[in-house]
Amino acid sequence: MKKLSTEIICIAQRARKASKELANCGSAQRNKALLAMAEALREHKQRIAKANKKDLELAKGQSNAFLGRLKLDEQGVLKIAERIEKIVHLEDPVGKLIKEWEGVQGLKIRKVRVPIGVIAVIYESRPEVSADCSALCVKSGNAVILKGGKEAFNSNQAITQALREAIKPYLPEGTVNLIESKEREAVDILLTLSDYIDLIIPRGGESLIRKVVEKSRIPVIKHYKGICHIYVDEDADLNMAEEICYNAKVQKPSTCNAMETLLIHTDVAVRFLPFIVRRLQNSGVEVRGCRKTKQILDAISKLQVKEAKEEDWSTEYLDLILSIKVVESLEEAIEHINKYGTKHSDAIITDDRKKAEEFLQRVDSACVYWNASTRFTDGEQFRMGAEMGISTDKIHCRGPMALEELTSYKYLIYGRGQIRE
Amino acid sequence: MKKLSTEIICIAQRARKASKELANCGSAQRNKALLAMAEALREHKQRIAKANKKDLELAKGQSNAFLGRLKLDEQGVLKIAERIEKIVHLEDPVGKLIKEWEGVQGLKIRKVRVPIGVIAVIYESRPEVSADCSALCVKSGNAVILKGGKEAFNSNQAITQALREAIKPYLPEGTVNLIESKEREAVDILLTLSDYIDLIIPRGGESLIRKVVEKSRIPVIKHYKGICHIYVDEDADLNMAEEICYNAKVQKPSTCNAMETLLIHTDVAVRFLPFIVRRLQNSGVEVRGCRKTKQILDAISKLQVKEAKEEDWSTEYLDLILSIKVVESLEEAIEHINKYGTKHSDAIITDDRKKAEEFLQRVDSACVYWNASTRFTDGEQFRMGAEMGISTDKIHCRGPMALEELTSYKYLIYGRGQIRE
Repeated sequence: MKKLSTEIICIAQRARKASKELANCGSAQRNKALLAMAEALREHKQRIAKANKKDLELAKGQSNAFLGRLKLDEQGVLKIAERIEKIVHLEDPVGKLIKEWEGVQGLKIRKVRVPIGVIAVIYESRPEVSADCSALCVKSGNAVILKGGKEAFNSNQAITQALREAIKPYLPEGTVNLIESKEREAVDILLTLSDYIDLIIPRGGESLIRKVVEKSRIPVIKHYKGICHIYVDEDADLNMAEEICYNAKVQKPSTCNAMETLLIHTDVAVRFLPFIVRRLQNSGVEVRGCRKTKQILDAISKLQVKEAKEEDWSTEYLDLILSIKVVESLEEAIEHINKYGTKHSDAIITDDRKKAEEFLQRVDSACVYWNASTRFTDGEQFRMGAEMGISTDKIHCRGPMALEELTSYKYLIYGRGQIRE
Repeated sequence: MKKLSTEIICIAQRARKASKELANCGSAQRNKALLAMAEALREHKQRIAKANKKDLELAKGQSNAFLGRLKLDEQGVLKIAERIEKIVHLEDPVGKLIKEWEGVQGLKIRKVRVPIGVIAVIYESRPEVSADCSALCVKSGNAVILKGGKEAFNSNQAITQALREAIKPYLPEGTVNLIESKEREAVDILLTLSDYIDLIIPRGGESLIRKVVEKSRIPVIKHYKGICHIYVDEDADLNMAEEICYNAKVQKPSTCNAMETLLIHTDVAVRFLPFIVRRLQNSGVEVRGCRKTKQILDAISKLQVKEAKEEDWSTEYLDLILSIKVVESLEEAIEHINKYGTKHSDAIITDDRKKAEEFLQRVDSACVYWNASTRFTDGEQFRMGAEMGISTDKIHCRGPMALEELTSYKYLIYGRGQIRE
């Protein structure tokens, strides 16, 4: 424990030291490092894929979903390299002027973006996170400490070794760091080092995030689950509603911005339910309806669906499962979303601007849509560039966390000898 | 303990419920509530001052500084009322458009400010914090939970009672809340209620803030101490330097933006030290100098000063005490500040633009000044309006925390049936 603690503190100190230099490395320098990182991944793709095979071997017997998240073949490595090259071309957030104005006595105040400092990313299985997060941190001038899951130990080691070698000519040594220890306590120790680490970003399942929040003495930005809703209003264009609902559920059900609950206004339920449910069922979606949903489907179309239980409203399926509820009003829809939702992404389908605006204002989620699929909640779809994840917090950043969200700011104040009276 | 817990959860739930309604109360409604709050304080000034006298009575024997912070007479109450009226006239941050652009497929994205939700403020002695923080939260559409020190129990109760009565016709009941319990555990319980509270703001001494950070499961924005530096460069206008240093130390030494350490370039030390030290000493400032400072003063002017010890560089005096160090270079000054500073406010005095820019860029503090006093770090001086305090964090907000910093944002996305491909 003592030894482990010393080792982790050492890494964190190295990261802190690097972050101080990094803040002053120019854009060109950081972009060169990114290009070298992409190049190194290409060069070492075989070695990385081989390390990944070793991890897969050790994980034998785990679920297919687990192995799928863990897998990283040569093609996968090449894709990461491409993503990193894209990041090179994104605008550098560091040093950007946010605002400029005059304070009292003619003081000129400039608010400019600066890196946050040292960011620790705690994640599970997916080894590509190691490279993606490193690249985003390098671009935004932050040092990064990676703590991956022990199941991806060999992959993470191979990736970060390649990255660390690659950036050496351009950036300080402690820019990219990996905690290699497989011991459980490693995370606990990391979470206490507020002198060296400015921000913790946990990426993974709910239990990982809860554990991190529970123990951290450092600010955490949470990327929690997404229980996303679509509300089909009585004034909806039902063809549009069907396309959007189908897309939000079926196009990629394993993502946090996929629809988990469909709310339908009672006045259009009879006209809408049979069509959407048949189409979803034909695509293999298991539907769980409220009592009214079941009644309508049974009476009109003889479609059979499971009955939704109370816990369905607060379940993130991440799968081809959908809960459906018939509501009496816009009011009921908004209340349902604010009660069971996770402040992620929710949509209203309607042709009535007034109701749409009420929904947009009152639904307390990071992204609220009018007549579009919730699946668009994503840094690239928003044209914000690559993203670290989707924050369900309200502090610091909300929704897609892209490069700007990886920065803080400072005030530069230009005077001519002003003193306070 | 069980009973206390139930009581506090009850208050937090009430605040959460209020915050949902508050977010949709218009600007006019919130401003009416603010005017009523100011009016109520005027009306009840006698009762509040009387309650404060009771607190002062119970605190007999405490230090004068302590009693000074606790004291709130009728004049003081009137001043709070005036401050609240000023807040009415500030721009409403809620609903403000931050940015608007197009995502993929022509999606129209609007990023708009929304209230954070429920903010808990944990503070010591000063009872006016109860009213000031309530007003800022009402203006920014947040519900507030106040947890003041037990020494100000009667004052806080009288103030919040008046405020709660005043806002009743305009805003939901749980908008302003006071935790009345004097038990130590009350804060501990509060810090676990992440379902109902979005942000914790501790205001007070270092030990209070450390305790809050240690125990909180809710994001905390820290307003830590300020060890502010002024670096007098070899190319400084020494008359300007003297005026600024004198102002930053003497004008109000008890504030977090007052200078605690003066750094002087060795090449101007002989010309500058005797003048500034004599002037400071004449105003009752105790000077603690590095060895070189002592040597120079002794050799040239026979001025006697104490020797600064290592711990002086990391001490926030908040008093008429100043540590002075002679440095060999700009580099050494920057390193000293980044090592011993608290990322609050630091200044360089120089006529050399290049050196100033280097200092502004490399000193890692919320506010970095060129040729002006550090005493300007303040929401009103920055023309940002009234402030909650000065954040020494880098997450969410840095420097003066005014109305905008009391908000989060959300994305409103306007579509025409777009689905993700």
